[in-house]
Amino acid sequence: MKKLINAPVDFVRESLEGMAVAHPDLIKVHHDPTFIYRTDAPKHGKVAIVSGGGSGHEPMHGGFVGIGMLDAACPGEVFTSPTPDQMLEAAKKVDGGAGILYIVKNYSGDIMNFEMATELARSEGIRVLNILIDDDVAVKDSLYTQGRRGVGTTVLAEKICGAATEQGYDLQRVASLCRRVNLNGRSMGIALTSCTVPAKGTPTFALGDREVEMGIGIHGEPGRERMSIKSADEIAQMLAMSIIEDISYSRTVREWDEDKGEWVDVELMNHAFEKGDKVLAFVNSMGGTPLSELYIIYRQLVEVCEKHSLQIVRNLIGPYMTSLDMQGCSITLLKLDDEMIQLWDAPVKTPSLRWGI
Amino acid sequence: MKKLINAPVDFVRESLEGMAVAHPDLIKVHHDPTFIYRTDAPKHGKVAIVSGGGSGHEPMHGGFVGIGMLDAACPGEVFTSPTPDQMLEAAKKVDGGAGILYIVKNYSGDIMNFEMATELARSEGIRVLNILIDDDVAVKDSLYTQGRRGVGTTVLAEKICGAATEQGYDLQRVASLCRRVNLNGRSMGIALTSCTVPAKGTPTFALGDREVEMGIGIHGEPGRERMSIKSADEIAQMLAMSIIEDISYSRTVREWDEDKGEWVDVELMNHAFEKGDKVLAFVNSMGGTPLSELYIIYRQLVEVCEKHSLQIVRNLIGPYMTSLDMQGCSITLLKLDDEMIQLWDAPVKTPSLRWGI
Repeated sequence: MKKLINAPVDFVRESLEGMAVAHPDLIKVHHDPTFIYRTDAPKHGKVAIVSGGGSGHEPMHGGFVGIGMLDAACPGEVFTSPTPDQMLEAAKKVDGGAGILYIVKNYSGDIMNFEMATELARSEGIRVLNILIDDDVAVKDSLYTQGRRGVGTTVLAEKICGAATEQGYDLQRVASLCRRVNLNGRSMGIALTSCTVPAKGTPTFALGDREVEMGIGIHGEPGRERMSIKSADEIAQMLAMSIIEDISYSRTVREWDEDKGEWVDVELMNHAFEKGDKVLAFVNSMGGTPLSELYIIYRQLVEVCEKHSLQIVRNLIGPYMTSLDMQGCSITLLKLDDEMIQLWDAPVKTPSLRWGI
Repeated sequence: MKKLINAPVDFVRESLEGMAVAHPDLIKVHHDPTFIYRTDAPKHGKVAIVSGGGSGHEPMHGGFVGIGMLDAACPGEVFTSPTPDQMLEAAKKVDGGAGILYIVKNYSGDIMNFEMATELARSEGIRVLNILIDDDVAVKDSLYTQGRRGVGTTVLAEKICGAATEQGYDLQRVASLCRRVNLNGRSMGIALTSCTVPAKGTPTFALGDREVEMGIGIHGEPGRERMSIKSADEIAQMLAMSIIEDISYSRTVREWDEDKGEWVDVELMNHAFEKGDKVLAFVNSMGGTPLSELYIIYRQLVEVCEKHSLQIVRNLIGPYMTSLDMQGCSITLLKLDDEMIQLWDAPVKTPSLRWGI
């Protein structure tokens, strides 16, 4: 393993310390328990959005804390869920009295801990709702996940919902918007190489010289198939078609019901993409793949979308949800409506996503 | 070689086509000869900045074309200088009547071709000046370079000078500013792995499992020494100290003299950093190194700068000048004055650098 790190055990803390000194105008880092929060928190009267998950996916989530996106992020150790006390303390720090939305990726540990944090925060008088992101079409269940994994749509939901909180949406409305973004978004990824977790020091999985993992998870979880590498155009087509051909489906998600004061099972329906849909196309680097290659993927994605009458009206291209140094990429398509477009375009100022301000 | 590409011979063209469809609001790509230019070019009465160089360093330069930075960029094949006809046609396309500044990295091919383009453009009645960037302290001469290589300061010069053109600086004043940025900037890089040029298909050089190249060039040119990998803190210290301890030195640079109408040799003096200097600290990924590791380097860089009484007042952290998929990083320190700070902070809107707009 060759990495720009000191002791592996210090990897997450030192990286966060670097972030903190790099962006003191935007974020602060709280240690023990660990969370990143807006320098100007709490914003009185504004709903606050808190997300989190294992480290190793930078810039997600910490790099999205700031104006118009997240109010706080809770990083766990590499590929390890953060703990309820992190989520609780983050909520207490950023609560402006209008409540907290936890955006939770669908991994068993994240769900369990965010649910516990929801109950703890509520017992302290803080309104909390949580919305699950489960957008990865690659596999039905996975190593750490029941149901679909939460991947690229998370970044888009954080941007869109963050903008909504700046515009005065109340908690129920932001939660409803976030649910809708999740139901409108689908993703699929591919790995050309494994990532190497610092504490382990060796690649998480082995791929041959000409081999790739189609449908990879962001922790290196197995995908759909291991196959010989193909051209960028074929790969873009396979990723895009997995998303476009994904049929409508429903599943049950646990959400907190404020009226009942308890967890309830909600049946949610994802609708397949339809001709004429306006979409945001997101081509994401897994960390080790350079921008030049992402544009080659995007070029073909545009052709596939045109062929299937999906109209790309916004895009995002770059390393936003990574798996350490893994080479590869993912594609996310998000069906947009006018409200989401307006919120996507709204100003954002975070360490890793910024425009209009 | 595993990359997200189609035929290696199509790598540059297809990546540019992807860029063009991704950012039609900001840039257009002209083929045959190849250059990227502002959608709204020419801007009448504004000095235009044109840069260029071999491909494989994305987002530099094409990702910096847009409002407040470059007016055009000329990409060569991977690690290969663009040709004078590209530079000439780019100049003709973006000339708004106030002249063109060519920003040229110090590589023999780039210099020769930009000088030829300068003469061609002048013969067609377009005022052109060119400024050399030679900021890499690693080695005195290198594989494709007489004198110091042009690296990270290029990105900073393009941002600062681009802002100056938006604020109405005339050609001589922009050129003078660019020269000053170059004289104030110094860089040093390290490679943990080699890059792989698509057309070759195998790594440019070989490094052992625990070996790194200190002082690497952005084309994989040898640096100062090959050594065992060290901790991130030690690496950050070595990179930073190479820059901070670099003494004042002078060398002769060829520039076009408008009064004389000929090339003249100008003696330029780089002054060493001094205690109390305000600096911009730029930690750059070579392409395959993720953001989390860059922040660990930045964290130590802050300590080194504090220890040597250099005051970091601005920073830039991310993959801005890459070497394809190479793992590693570089540090650039740029001494700032108030004028440069104001220009750095000015709005910019390009595919890969954006704020305030």
